[in-house]
Amino acid sequence: MKRALIVVSHGSRREASNEEVRRLSQQLSIHQLNSFDDVSAAFLELAEPSIPDGVAAAIERGADEVTVLPYFLSAGRHVTQDIPAEVDKARRQNQDAVIRIAPYIGRAPEMADIVLRMAEDNQ
Amino acid sequence: MKRALIVVSHGSRREASNEEVRRLSQQLSIHQLNSFDDVSAAFLELAEPSIPDGVAAAIERGADEVTVLPYFLSAGRHVTQDIPAEVDKARRQNQDAVIRIAPYIGRAPEMADIVLRMAEDNQ
Repeated sequence: MKRALIVVSHGSRREASNEEVRRLSQQLSIHQLNSFDDVSAAFLELAEPSIPDGVAAAIERGADEVTVLPYFLSAGRHVTQDIPAEVDKARRQNQDAVIRIAPYIGRAPEMADIVLRMAEDNQ
Repeated sequence: MKRALIVVSHGSRREASNEEVRRLSQQLSIHQLNSFDDVSAAFLELAEPSIPDGVAAAIERGADEVTVLPYFLSAGRHVTQDIPAEVDKARRQNQDAVIRIAPYIGRAPEMADIVLRMAEDNQ
């Protein structure tokens, strides 16, 4: 079983912002807590690869189980509708792989602590 | 000195998503680590209040120092241009208050750990 993680963000016209998410996925791939064989980034719009292309690429590199993690802070339309629709596309195109959606990052209970720490650091 | 924290998110057509950010700001106001006298939410677009309206309301409630925290994961155009422009508007309208912008939440070094934990929880 080879497991891939795909971190999905919205995508920005500002390429530096897309690079930030690609850099995060590189950091994750060498992170001491990481147990995924393959970590990459994908985007809902405005940047490449799309979710179906990112999933297809991970499967080409050997993954048979893919976790798509919405790198979003709140459960807006993108999280509740657009990402599930793109993942459904990817599932139809890759019927031998297991493709899951993880909870969006904003659901993590640590968020409140982090907001307060970032706000205080600034004083 | 009375200090206010305003958590700014993008704003969504889906009201449940805006409520999520308002709920976070309520949680923050009673959080054990919180040292702000006043915590509220504001939105860049699609939801109320706007940043200038949120800042004005905090000042009306007695704040003389306001920290605006961009609740965004990457430094796209909203973080680098749109929020600073809205904060400048608020500064021009409230010249007696100190209004700062905190780093955006995605800059927190804990993000990588949280992504991996959320992705693993899903297995």
